[in-house]
Amino acid sequence: MKLLCVGSVAYDTVATPFGRRERILGGSATYFSVAASYFAGVGIMAVVGEDFRSEDRRVLEKHKVDLEGLRTVPGGLTFHWHGEYGYDLNDAQTLKTDLNVLAGFAPDVPEVYRDAPFVCLANIDPKVQLRVLDQLRSPKLVAADTMNFWIDNRRAELREVLSRVHLLIVNEAEARQLSQEYNLLKAGQKILAWGPKMVIVKRGEYGVLKITPHSVFAAPAYPLESVFDPTGAGDTFAGGFMGFLSTCAELDSTAVRQAIVMGSVMASFNVEDFSLNRLSALSRAEIQERFSAFRKLTEFSGLE
Amino acid sequence: MKLLCVGSVAYDTVATPFGRRERILGGSATYFSVAASYFAGVGIMAVVGEDFRSEDRRVLEKHKVDLEGLRTVPGGLTFHWHGEYGYDLNDAQTLKTDLNVLAGFAPDVPEVYRDAPFVCLANIDPKVQLRVLDQLRSPKLVAADTMNFWIDNRRAELREVLSRVHLLIVNEAEARQLSQEYNLLKAGQKILAWGPKMVIVKRGEYGVLKITPHSVFAAPAYPLESVFDPTGAGDTFAGGFMGFLSTCAELDSTAVRQAIVMGSVMASFNVEDFSLNRLSALSRAEIQERFSAFRKLTEFSGLE
Repeated sequence: MKLLCVGSVAYDTVATPFGRRERILGGSATYFSVAASYFAGVGIMAVVGEDFRSEDRRVLEKHKVDLEGLRTVPGGLTFHWHGEYGYDLNDAQTLKTDLNVLAGFAPDVPEVYRDAPFVCLANIDPKVQLRVLDQLRSPKLVAADTMNFWIDNRRAELREVLSRVHLLIVNEAEARQLSQEYNLLKAGQKILAWGPKMVIVKRGEYGVLKITPHSVFAAPAYPLESVFDPTGAGDTFAGGFMGFLSTCAELDSTAVRQAIVMGSVMASFNVEDFSLNRLSALSRAEIQERFSAFRKLTEFSGLE
Repeated sequence: MKLLCVGSVAYDTVATPFGRRERILGGSATYFSVAASYFAGVGIMAVVGEDFRSEDRRVLEKHKVDLEGLRTVPGGLTFHWHGEYGYDLNDAQTLKTDLNVLAGFAPDVPEVYRDAPFVCLANIDPKVQLRVLDQLRSPKLVAADTMNFWIDNRRAELREVLSRVHLLIVNEAEARQLSQEYNLLKAGQKILAWGPKMVIVKRGEYGVLKITPHSVFAAPAYPLESVFDPTGAGDTFAGGFMGFLSTCAELDSTAVRQAIVMGSVMASFNVEDFSLNRLSALSRAEIQERFSAFRKLTEFSGLE
């Protein structure tokens, strides 16, 4: 198995200006794994309750996501996030978070996952991220995500995570909060000094910045006429990014830049419908076609 | 003379988190003309008061900006804008606007300007924009800018301007307000239907979107560690864009995309210092170097 993702499988209740859906399939591990599955084999470590529907399990199975690390808590309820978006779809308002079975989640990495070369520690308690890191044997590339709550309440543990991963993937507000620098280049450099080789800053509809010690790469988001639901866009980006990268012979700058564009391609599909409706029904041709469209979107000639 | 800009020459009082400056040289025609002057000859139509300092006139003269269209009103005071920015430098708060001599500005186009092939109607009363349009003989490319006040109060005149120009250059909020569409692609298509061949949407630190009936081009802003003062960035972009374009043999998609990047290059210099301090002291080598850096910032390979 090439890829491992530790994160959440969730039910989301989402309201956008374009509609409302109750208890639809979501969660960071879900979006990540389905996006990554278009490129390589992926397993997830996550937890659900007894209310987890078999039709939702089938979405993951259809994409050959390895579910050995998906635990079901008898009598428990699946993690539930309730949020809404206004017209500015970059900005989610969380109305309610029911941690449910996620509250006591302290997983051991299944034996078959311990040699996974590409690992994503999605947004989850840094203590759990460290526990997983301790159990990996020799990962080639580990990416971590995080959020405001952990930056406020687990700063020491988060700093230890950062000293042990290759890559941090966060949004603009998180990069600023973590580094206490408003300017994103300064924020990136400060975080790099704590350990990671690369910081990827997600800017929603404005795309992505990749910051390394000596270079910056900027990719726009693919402009769409209809964005229905941005939920999961960041995790889908990470899944497309890591999935593509896991197929590359060398993890050089060329591969990383292509992978960032591929992550953006996958995210652009995901926001076109609620839940994983669009993401889980893609063809290879559609993916290739949008990658080409990304080149047309951004390319310009050098000067003579 | 290749280029003509109708707009303002102003004194700005600007406060940013990085400092405050009183009554420094600014104005849309000032930023536009100095940026464009690196590429071709440019004349301005604007008005100042008797308080306009000779050292500020010398900034324009140093760049060989033709000042035949710069009128001085005896006893009048130069247009004064007082604004401030927080850390989010995309968002200017206007504290005070003293129109002064700009209030009665209804210029006639000097004879030597009437054949200018590239014309920018900067943000100004659409009635004045129409008056200037009436006096041009056969412009090759006319760009217009506008703002919320004119969208609210001169909608009919603005629609007439749009039916007669090739290009609208506005920021995100203006594109939305004008079109009454939140989504920028829909906004762009709606505006295109009113006349222009091209809409350029400025997104501050997130760069620029160019929308034509059948394609979109996205250019990021050049990421900087120190942005001191974003005042004039949009007009500087327009000046670099139109200036570069006026040197191109053909106004095809390749030229337009390069011109957009060149506009972004010029704007990135301008925000590095207050007023035109940085913009007015550039070398050709610095400009070329940053254009190359833009390519490194954005380029990625296609898939095999």
